Amino acid sequence: MSHNSFGHLFRVTTWGESHGPALGCVIDGCPPGLALTAADIQHWLDRRKPGGNRFVTQRREADEVKILSGVFEGAGGGPVTTGTPISLLIENTDQRSKDYSTISTQFRPGHADYTYFAKYGIRDYRGGGRASARETAARVAAGAIARRVLGQGVTIRAALVQVGPHAIDRGRWDWDQTEQNPFWCPDAETVPVWERFLDQVRKAGSSTGAIVEVTAEGVPAGWGAPIYGKLDAELAGALMSINAVKGVEIGAGFAAAAFTGEYNADAMTLDNGAVSFASNHAGGVAGGISTGQPVVARLALKPTSSILTPQISLNEAGEATEVRTTGRHDPCVGLRATPVAEAMMACVLADAFLRHRGQTGGGAFRPGVEGRD
Amino acid sequence: MSHNSFGHLFRVTTWGESHGPALGCVIDGCPPGLALTAADIQHWLDRRKPGGNRFVTQRREADEVKILSGVFEGAGGGPVTTGTPISLLIENTDQRSKDYSTISTQFRPGHADYTYFAKYGIRDYRGGGRASARETAARVAAGAIARRVLGQGVTIRAALVQVGPHAIDRGRWDWDQTEQNPFWCPDAETVPVWERFLDQVRKAGSSTGAIVEVTAEGVPAGWGAPIYGKLDAELAGALMSINAVKGVEIGAGFAAAAFTGEYNADAMTLDNGAVSFASNHAGGVAGGISTGQPVVARLALKPTSSILTPQISLNEAGEATEVRTTGRHDPCVGLRATPVAEAMMACVLADAFLRHRGQTGGGAFRPGVEGRD
Amino acid sequence: MSHNSFGHLFRVTTWGESHGPALGCVIDGCPPGLALTAADIQHWLDRRKPGGNRFVTQRREADEVKILSGVFEGAGGGPVTTGTPISLLIENTDQRSKDYSTISTQFRPGHADYTYFAKYGIRDYRGGGRASARETAARVAAGAIARRVLGQGVTIRAALVQVGPHAIDRGRWDWDQTEQNPFWCPDAETVPVWERFLDQVRKAGSSTGAIVEVTAEGVPAGWGAPIYGKLDAELAGALMSINAVKGVEIGAGFAAAAFTGEYNADAMTLDNGAVSFASNHAGGVAGGISTGQPVVARLALKPTSSILTPQISLNEAGEATEVRTTGRHDPCVGLRATPVAEAMMACVLADAFLRHRGQTGGGAFRPGVEGRD
Amino acid sequence: MSHNSFGHLFRVTTWGESHGPALGCVIDGCPPGLALTAADIQHWLDRRKPGGNRFVTQRREADEVKILSGVFEGAGGGPVTTGTPISLLIENTDQRSKDYSTISTQFRPGHADYTYFAKYGIRDYRGGGRASARETAARVAAGAIARRVLGQGVTIRAALVQVGPHAIDRGRWDWDQTEQNPFWCPDAETVPVWERFLDQVRKAGSSTGAIVEVTAEGVPAGWGAPIYGKLDAELAGALMSINAVKGVEIGAGFAAAAFTGEYNADAMTLDNGAVSFASNHAGGVAGGISTGQPVVARLALKPTSSILTPQISLNEAGEATEVRTTGRHDPCVGLRATPVAEAMMACVLADAFLRHRGQTGGGAFRPGVEGRD
Repeated sequence: MSHNSFGHLFRVTTWGESHGPALGCVIDGCPPGLALTAADIQHWLDRRKPGGNRFVTQRREADEVKILSGVFEGAGGGPVTTGTPISLLIENTDQRSKDYSTISTQFRPGHADYTYFAKYGIRDYRGGGRASARETAARVAAGAIARRVLGQGVTIRAALVQVGPHAIDRGRWDWDQTEQNPFWCPDAETVPVWERFLDQVRKAGSSTGAIVEVTAEGVPAGWGAPIYGKLDAELAGALMSINAVKGVEIGAGFAAAAFTGEYNADAMTLDNGAVSFASNHAGGVAGGISTGQPVVARLALKPTSSILTPQISLNEAGEATEVRTTGRHDPCVGLRATPVAEAMMACVLADAFLRHRGQTGGGAFRPGVEGRD
Repeated sequence: MSHNSFGHLFRVTTWGESHGPALGCVIDGCPPGLALTAADIQHWLDRRKPGGNRFVTQRREADEVKILSGVFEGAGGGPVTTGTPISLLIENTDQRSKDYSTISTQFRPGHADYTYFAKYGIRDYRGGGRASARETAARVAAGAIARRVLGQGVTIRAALVQVGPHAIDRGRWDWDQTEQNPFWCPDAETVPVWERFLDQVRKAGSSTGAIVEVTAEGVPAGWGAPIYGKLDAELAGALMSINAVKGVEIGAGFAAAAFTGEYNADAMTLDNGAVSFASNHAGGVAGGISTGQPVVARLALKPTSSILTPQISLNEAGEATEVRTTGRHDPCVGLRATPVAEAMMACVLADAFLRHRGQTGGGAFRPGVEGRD
Repeated sequence: MSHNSFGHLFRVTTWGESHGPALGCVIDGCPPGLALTAADIQHWLDRRKPGGNRFVTQRREADEVKILSGVFEGAGGGPVTTGTPISLLIENTDQRSKDYSTISTQFRPGHADYTYFAKYGIRDYRGGGRASARETAARVAAGAIARRVLGQGVTIRAALVQVGPHAIDRGRWDWDQTEQNPFWCPDAETVPVWERFLDQVRKAGSSTGAIVEVTAEGVPAGWGAPIYGKLDAELAGALMSINAVKGVEIGAGFAAAAFTGEYNADAMTLDNGAVSFASNHAGGVAGGISTGQPVVARLALKPTSSILTPQISLNEAGEATEVRTTGRHDPCVGLRATPVAEAMMACVLADAFLRHRGQTGGGAFRPGVEGRD
Repeated sequence: MSHNSFGHLFRVTTWGESHGPALGCVIDGCPPGLALTAADIQHWLDRRKPGGNRFVTQRREADEVKILSGVFEGAGGGPVTTGTPISLLIENTDQRSKDYSTISTQFRPGHADYTYFAKYGIRDYRGGGRASARETAARVAAGAIARRVLGQGVTIRAALVQVGPHAIDRGRWDWDQTEQNPFWCPDAETVPVWERFLDQVRKAGSSTGAIVEVTAEGVPAGWGAPIYGKLDAELAGALMSINAVKGVEIGAGFAAAAFTGEYNADAMTLDNGAVSFASNHAGGVAGGISTGQPVVARLALKPTSSILTPQISLNEAGEATEVRTTGRHDPCVGLRATPVAEAMMACVLADAFLRHRGQTGGGAFRPGVEGRD
């Protein structure tokens, strides 16, 4: 129930402030015997790393992860997980020393400055402290381990599907494209549109929101659980916890409000002994349990709150103040949220997998087949 | 971590199947000394009760709640909570005996039939079993107690804001209206539109989706917590767990994706010593902690899966089958989800209140004022 | 984390007061497909039932359990668990109406009267309310289901090994004896000693303490987990939560304080491919994980606090008062705690089994054998 | 529910292996605004540190703690807690490189070697890995923070009351003595007895068990909760989780089994408006809730399993092997367990305090006084 942990059997606890000495996480409950090196985790961290192009913050962090516990030389010689807690550490190396005298008492609109003050009476104001998106590096590191738990049968990918008012054309969706542009954009023709738009936004010192879509293919039927442990409920909580997220939808999501029952139904047939669906409006989850179709979620991110335009606000003394953010910031947090969404999907699924295996022994019943897989 | 519980300090566990002898819930961690009678809870249950008008299922349940534990005569004579678990029981009285031979092995599209089968190999198929929306009666009962915990300073209300493709005009929003039509519709002029539309849908044996908006006024700044215990993350999980919900958004939600940073910012000023905001795009939550503004969430519900139109599907033997639902069903689950959304908001807030009081002692820091409220 | 729940994957929540309308429990996370009828549970409840002989309270409760949810007709026709929450209800039928005017404000020494008052300011004083040992009926019911989860490979039995100052002779231990006397005494020669002693105690209106030993045979190596999820730590918490328990020990327990390292060591050998130990001072747990030997715990119970002898105490007004308990009470709570200890052992093990299966897939590695069982 | 965490609102997660690069913990849910420096924590760590005298392991660890997150400059200038997770790191600096080829596949009797192998199939065998008592450094560090949460009103102290067969004389108990000998012995006359005994044990390459008593004075009435959240149940679980502990008792503990009800009762009177008890057989807890008397627990520790005497055992290949431990080890783990017991008491109480404040608002009702403190 702690505030900085999630998951039940695969449990992730993160810690650290933006400008403290380091940040990190502890993963408890990881299955034993999984091959795991720091390089395996680094691969995923590098995808989230700032400084990669002109559309993300120019803060340059090595974001080099160290494994402090929970792995040991396996039978094959390489390091494997031991089943004990895995502690990961990422040092903060590029916290510029600067003059925080103004910001230290100001409440920046849209940030957590005021709410942390109201709740705690004290906050680490440097770079947003605990509320900074730097915390998401720990999520991505945890997600790398979750992917190991899930194995190669489950493929988790995310893409940016809307930047500001500019949505992609889903008819042109090509996953390969997401690795070939700085936007995780699956539609090649939309790339130049976003490029122009984000250049405009950046030059104006403004910012914009975005929508990310994250999918998991290869999830078998049967993961998740009734009522409050529903797979989609866990996913909604996990994705909403990402910085700047203001909405989450599964499958058809908000569009389903306008559907008829006939259109919304995903007709089932048997295809070579496997259950097959004519559509996936459910987004791979029915009654809170996976259907075997891809699990599909979308998350809406608000525009970055840090903008150059002066904003009216208050300080701790209750005085009116003008806030103007001059630091290094992303014009659109959606870009860096994309790998984070993948990580959260991975962690939620790893936990659902272990819980399913705990309660039932694992596997699934299949129509026309006696007994569990 | 159990699948049928939620909350941390104010913890709700529900149980029961649609056609079993009864359903109910246990509330653990309720503060002592709160006045509570069965009638207090019944008041809220009656708002959710089916059978009230032609737009909801004609199943008639008394839905009479009994308090089995956790209250005792207080100093003033009336029953009050004692701080021990409160067990609530609602008997199922209108489960029509019928021939379940077909449905018992069929997978109805959009229902949890197939996923429960895949996971457990066994399911109570009568009326949807555990996956039936009857479970939400227990949520509403728990919500009635949560409201007592919150007290009169917090007002929780929900309204239906879209039915099928027909959205209300927010400019005509009038909370009083919600009690004067069978749709919890806050816009009098939209009522006849929905009436005509739902009559059509019902006569066609079809169904439609909807969007519900739920708000909590009077929530002080400071409730919620960093990162995974964020108030909006808890809320997203709780609302997504309601039957048929496919999307949740907070404040501006998905619309924020198209906003600029300037537009999205909620400017702060001090108004007679109290923090005041020029807008509420944040929906009352920043950095996962309440701002003191109304907490605002919307949830999208898919159309009821039970429709008269025959649908292609499978049975447990893996054979193709035609499913046609002839039972009593709601053409639009949004109507009955409205009191449920209020209940979930109440439970999440009651828990956040107790956790905040636990960690900090309660109250909030205010700009310009020394120390906590 | 709720106060009235325990377990993680196999999670038990109990509710109810001694003189309220009913008491019960909800078991969440039970595996599906286990045969379960009310009679299966009743079998274990009857062993705990008061009124059986002159050495336990003469309160006569039918203690008839009803299953309200979570079971349904299985493939074989008989009812089986479905994987959804199992709600059990036991009505209170013998709460004598009596004059509570004195006791309602008195603090009986040794009872929870004062501490519930101090914490909550309100308490159900009838028969001890929530703090009454009647709550343990719900534990026994839950334990019956836990035994189903464990299956026939695991045998859980408890015996009374000391009553007042009179300990059994362990050399004469015979499990069959425990079913043939009202004391769960495994040593036939000690039975008349306890009989005489307890008659004395009862006639004197006094009470006495006792020690219970509970064992689980057939637990495979590998259940439990490092550090705070240790099997013995979970067991200690669960057993200490039983009414009147003041001490818990595992294996050699307190006696081990005087052992040498040489004597304490349980030497390991291989016996027909199976690990064998020369002794079991560890009580079947090393490093918090089961060794494959019998899990052995002992619990010390204080004497029943309700005695005829007048005692000096206070009332809610802060006035000195004389307390004299005239109701029906057990002279030695150890007798009825014996089936309760078995139930708690069963629940802790069922949970450990499911968690182990969740994290690792189940089974164990064996010396000299490649891979998991 | 994770295996390496405990506590609910004040939640401690520890990680690290004996010979890994570091160990540490994360404390989540700490109240904000508490003064806290690394030196505050170091003070308590130094009391547990090995290498202090000839009766504990000669492994010399600086055990220098670093605070990586969760504190920031307070209003007064010094660092205070911020309410966000506090991450503590202790580097392992004295892991001697040695030849582990024999021990790497051997199961040392009494250690967790075999059980970790059986469960996980892999273990970090260097120095006991995760099962090493080095993990307790993280507990002591967490305990230092828990003491800050409790404040100066609560005094937690532990003493060694038995070493091997040699118990202290409780009539000579003097807390000041515990700081003046290497044994935390409260009875000056017993010190030379233990000195001689432990010298013997050490020279013989043997080891011995011990009993520790830990008390908390100043705990107000009302902390703890009914049934499974009982203060003594939480304490029992926490203390049993300490390495080598085989028994826990509260107040009179096992001795209460031989008591009469009359003797066991702690008579209550009012003394200058405060509740006073004639004895404390309850150990400060009744019905799972604190009485306002000192909370008293004792824990029994088995003898150190690492001894020079060769022992019969097995290796991973299932072959008979002779185990002889030559490393640096404590002849009696009781000495170093004493500060650890204090730390666990502190953490359990800090959590109970916050949970009590969460559910009730804090304070307690007092006889003869209207309303809560």
